Order: sequence, then C-alpha cells, then structure tokens
Amino acid sequence: MMTDFSFTIHRQDSESRARRGSLQTPHGAIETPGFFFCATKAAVKAVTTDQARAAGTSAILVNTYHMMLQPGAEVVARLGGLHRFMGWDGPMLTDSGGFQIFSLGGDDGDGKPPLVKITEEGAQFRSHIDGSMHMLTPERSIEIQRLLGADLVVALDECPPAKLDREATSRSLALTHRWAKRSLEAHRQSNDGRQALYGVVQGGVFPELRRESAQFISAQPFFGHAVGGCLPAQQEDEPLYDVFAMAMEGLDRARPVHLLGIGGVRDLWEGAACGVDTFDCVHPTRIARHGGALVRGEGWRINLRNARFREDQGPIEEGCDCLACARYSRGYLHHCLKAGEVTGLTLITLHNIAFMNRLMATIRAAIAAGRFAEEKRAWCGA
Amino acid sequence: MMTDFSFTIHRQDSESRARRGSLQTPHGAIETPGFFFCATKAAVKAVTTDQARAAGTSAILVNTYHMMLQPGAEVVARLGGLHRFMGWDGPMLTDSGGFQIFSLGGDDGDGKPPLVKITEEGAQFRSHIDGSMHMLTPERSIEIQRLLGADLVVALDECPPAKLDREATSRSLALTHRWAKRSLEAHRQSNDGRQALYGVVQGGVFPELRRESAQFISAQPFFGHAVGGCLPAQQEDEPLYDVFAMAMEGLDRARPVHLLGIGGVRDLWEGAACGVDTFDCVHPTRIARHGGALVRGEGWRINLRNARFREDQGPIEEGCDCLACARYSRGYLHHCLKAGEVTGLTLITLHNIAFMNRLMATIRAAIAAGRFAEEKRAWCGA
Repeated sequence: MMTDFSFTIHRQDSESRARRGSLQTPHGAIETPGFFFCATKAAVKAVTTDQARAAGTSAILVNTYHMMLQPGAEVVARLGGLHRFMGWDGPMLTDSGGFQIFSLGGDDGDGKPPLVKITEEGAQFRSHIDGSMHMLTPERSIEIQRLLGADLVVALDECPPAKLDREATSRSLALTHRWAKRSLEAHRQSNDGRQALYGVVQGGVFPELRRESAQFISAQPFFGHAVGGCLPAQQEDEPLYDVFAMAMEGLDRARPVHLLGIGGVRDLWEGAACGVDTFDCVHPTRIARHGGALVRGEGWRINLRNARFREDQGPIEEGCDCLACARYSRGYLHHCLKAGEVTGLTLITLHNIAFMNRLMATIRAAIAAGRFAEEKRAWCGA
Repeated sequence: MMTDFSFTIHRQDSESRARRGSLQTPHGAIETPGFFFCATKAAVKAVTTDQARAAGTSAILVNTYHMMLQPGAEVVARLGGLHRFMGWDGPMLTDSGGFQIFSLGGDDGDGKPPLVKITEEGAQFRSHIDGSMHMLTPERSIEIQRLLGADLVVALDECPPAKLDREATSRSLALTHRWAKRSLEAHRQSNDGRQALYGVVQGGVFPELRRESAQFISAQPFFGHAVGGCLPAQQEDEPLYDVFAMAMEGLDRARPVHLLGIGGVRDLWEGAACGVDTFDCVHPTRIARHGGALVRGEGWRINLRNARFREDQGPIEEGCDCLACARYSRGYLHHCLKAGEVTGLTLITLHNIAFMNRLMATIRAAIAAGRFAEEKRAWCGA
C-alpha cells in the first residue's frame, strides 16, 4: 500500500529544523518546503489550472467542506474525481472539512444556539448554502476524500477555540485523538494505494498539549503529519510560532509535515525553520482580489487600487517574469481594478502565485546551499 | 500616408455580395469576413489577451467612450497607448464614442431632461461614472482616438432613435455628414500614417436615407466604411437586415465595410451576404458571463447554469479544441457557475471566442470555395 508515496530529505539545515526534501505522489513530486495553492471550490480563484501551472505551481488544495456541499462528493466522483473535474494533473491535497465546519461556530457557552453540534460520533452542522443538515464523522470525511480522490488526505480533528481553557482543550484533544484512530482505520479499509493520510496535531494554544499530541500522532501509522490551528484563524501577522514549534518538536522527523492554513511571507520562513515541509494558505490569491500584489520589501505587498499607481509605467515587481509583470504596467492593473475588470484580478493573482513559487524556490535553495539562516534574516530581519 | 493599410479582395461570391479578403494594418492582418472582440474597457472580459489570442482572435475593439472617462485618453497615451497598455499587439479598432453617449438618452420629446445635448458642435453629456460634464466633438473624437492609438478609427456619427420620423432622421443624417467631413479634416491634420479612418453610414430605419448616406460617405476619402445602428440597439434576433443591405448597396465596393455592434450567429451570415467585411459585438463575451455557451444547432447556445448539466461529462461542444472543451466537462462549468467561480466565466468565454473564430473561418472558407450560399443554408436554414 502507498507505494506511490515517499518523502525524501535531501538536506537538513545545521542551525534550524529546516530541511530540503521531495514528496512523491501518484501525480508527481512536490519539492519541499513547498506551497499548496487554495482551490477552495475546485478552482484557483480567477485563474485556470494551466495559468497556475505556468506560474510555477506544483500543488493545490481543495476544501472538502465546500465540495461535500456543492456539488457533492458523489457528483465529483461520477465526473471522474477532482483531478479530472478541475483539470489538474499534479499533486493535490484535501483537508478534512473540519476547520470550515468549526468556523461556523459551536456551543462555546455564550448562550447562542450552536450552528455546529459536536459529539463523540462527529460534527453535525448546517450548510451555509441551503441550510440543510449534515453530519461529518471521521469515517465520512475519509469517504468523501476518497470520492474526491486527492493524493494527500487529512484526518478529521476538532479545531478548538483559542479562548478555551486548558481542561476543555485537553478534552477536545482527546476527542481529536480518538477521531485520528477512527480515521486511520477507515483509511486502512478503503485505501487502494492512491491516497496517503495525514494525522493532525492539535492542543490549541497550550504548548504541553501540543507536545502530547505530537507524540500521540507520531505513534500512529500516518504517512504525514499536519499541524492544525485554533479558532478564530490566526491573524497573519501573529501566528503562534512558539506553539507550532512545540508541536513540531515531538513529531517523527522522517515524515512530511504540513502546516494547515498559514502562509504569509514571514510564516513561510518561520515555519520552514521549525521543520514544516508544506504549507497552504488563501493569502496570495485572496489579497489579489482586493488589489494586493506581493512584492519584496516592507510589508511584502502593495495595493494597486492606490491612486499613486494610476500612471505608473513599471511592472508590479522589477525582474519578475510572470505574465502580469512581463506585459502589463501597474497603471493598467490599477485601471482594471477601478473599472471592475476581472482580467486585472487574474493578472495580479498570477503575479502572486509566481511570487510565492519563487519564494519557496528561494527557501529551498537557501537550505540546499547552507544559507538558510542568512537568507531568512535578509527577508525577515533579525 | 496610410501606407501600412490596405484592403485586398481575394474572392467575390457569385450569388451574393459576400467577399473573402485581407485587411492589412500596422499591427498585422485581419482575414475577412472577420470579427473584432470587444475589450470595452481595455480588457476582453474575463480573459487575458494571451488567452484571447490562443483562442484564435486576431482583432479587438475598445470603446472610446469608456476610455475617455476612465482612465482618460491622455493617461492611456502616457502609458504608451492602448496596444501597450492592454498588452495587445494585433489589429485594433476604436469606435467614435458616439453610440454609448447617445444611448444615455437625448431629448426625444418625451418631456424628460436629456442626459445628452446635441448641437452642431458636438454632443455634451454627463459621465455615468462621476457625473462630470463632457463634450465630444468630431475633432475631439479623432484626437482621443489618436491618443488611444488603435489602427482603425471611426468618425463620430449621430445615432438616431429608431422611432424618429423621416424628416427628423434626415436632419440627423445631415449632421452626421457634416461631422464626417469635420472628422476627415481632423484626421488629415493629425494622422501620421498609423491610423485609418472609417466613415459611418447612417439614416436610421429609412432605406432611402441609408442609400443617400452610402453615396455621400463613399464620395469622401475614408479608408473604410462603417454601418451604424439605431437606438435602442437592435435585438439580436431581428436586426434591420433590409436596411443594412440598402446601406451596403451604395458603398464603394473596393473599401472594407464594418458593421458596428452586431454579431449574433445569423447576423454574421446575413451580414457577410450583404458584403460586410468585419463585425464587432459584445454577444460572445457577454452571454458567457451569464453561463451562455455558443454551440451549433437550434438557438446556437446552451445555458450551462441549467441543472441538466450538473453531471454532464461531455465538453461544451464535441470536436471543439478550445481549452474549456479540451479539459473540462459541462458538469465542471456548471459547478463553477453555481459556486460563483470566475474561472468558469473565463473558460466559457474562451469557448465562445474559439467558436466565433471558427465560425468566421467557416464563412471565409465557404466563400473561398464557392459554397457560401450552401453553407449559409446549412447554418441558418432557407
């Protein structure tokens, strides 16, 4: 089983836990540290998969929550699975569906009726699309992900609210661990060798719970490890680096580690330093839709809606070889944003994808050359 | 002057006025009958110029009205002109700006305050974007189009409301003709050989006025002729074929003829039969945004939002080699429309562009092979 999957570490950084590797899947390899672009509803927003690939993309993530509600996992399966459905023949990851469900809001003791009811069995929730009731169990999550057919799949975890106290978080963690074992069993029964399963490290904001979780998850036969977040999602400027670092320390270092949903520029350097192998985040494609273009320098972005770009003849970023920078001025992109032309969002998205892929290549090259700490300082400061 | 422009007729159909030709511009040739895709605000909606070209596009049209208001012709000029601004190096046409202005509504005797005031001098109107007042004269239209820098430019005409009586339409036509002479003079003074001017045949719904206009315009040294419409714009199912045919009969047949703003499937066959060499229309890109995909057969379109396509594994159209048909199912495109994914609009737009370009190639091949009437019947019925 899982013979088409492997993870090879080519070089370990001497000063940090950063490593340069390759993650092999039935749909090709992801060079690590690597980035999965979000194709939330089976489309990378505003671009075609061909354009995403031309901008250097090697891997994408699709959200199980969105697919199970629209068009439904069985529909996707009848249309040939996600790869065929969305015209992507590269590596793909689906998450468990849990994060979006728990984001809807559970019973957190504030007296409001919960939109999500969590039991030992799973999570019962109401669709944000049509109000219909759904039940997501660890087994159903595995089944849905099998129907969708991504290469890498993730076990259902409970995302605890960050404000939960230690005892409640500990109870939540125990549930996540029981779900992890059920997920493994469901995966073992249905897997035909074309999917590999990631177990999720939880523990909220408590370092010792994170360590405990890492040890538990490492002791299970997961192909890879994923580090889950808390609710609400961290602000991009202040992720829980210390907590994540703690989570990482207890993990089996031979297996690939995915950090779920975090991917600002600084996060990538910090995450890689902690030993994260793959990342995913809506950040590069989401900010594009508001005119945000990634550039190296203070703040790592400019907003092309700003009037100062109205007659700017330069490209988004000098030296960038993406389609947007090769062919269009900031002035044109500013015009498209003002005029509501979708083509502008497409072009800015393509730039942000190219920027992220170049950044990951920079991180990989820095590790390979033994210059990781130096390059990290150059990008992020001390 | 105008040495980079020429129009060559390769073959004249024996049973109709249809002809197969080549229209040479400084940015390349348009094989005729040919189609200009609308890039109203300097972007073909939902696609990049590279994608439009890959789908077989050879020529585009940008609207002077939109550009003069946002970002302004002078801004476009400072950013290198429209070709550089929007990343398009092929043939390009700008219209005069008149049609959109007159669409805003003039004083047609219904007691409402006019948004447009037409005088001998030109048309005064209020911007739909910020309410600012603007004046478009024949001279200013030529100046704006020179700043924009398209290859083919159009003289300002007055678009009469279709409901205007013969006498009022005749007065309007006389004004259009005086504006035509002023446009020619303004063009003569400023042209550096990189633009060629089209004069517009008007006359509303009155065949004899159309004939009179065709004779007048033919007697002027325009490079090409354009046939203007009436207000409101004709419904695509019932254009004024007879009126346009009358307009065409009086024209100098050695010059290229452009039919402004009409381009349904049947219109292209009927227009070509009347001797129209080039067309433009928002139809193929506009219907795509509502899920409409062009296909051969009854009605010439399907609406992919329809629930019957939910699990349809087939392409939009069998045998089509566009990106959408090569890689995606109707089921996927239906999903994108339901999920609000822009990528779906991009793909359907690419199909519609490819469909139109293939249709124009079919029309050209039919004329070249002496099978025009036969092919027209096969597409449109008797």
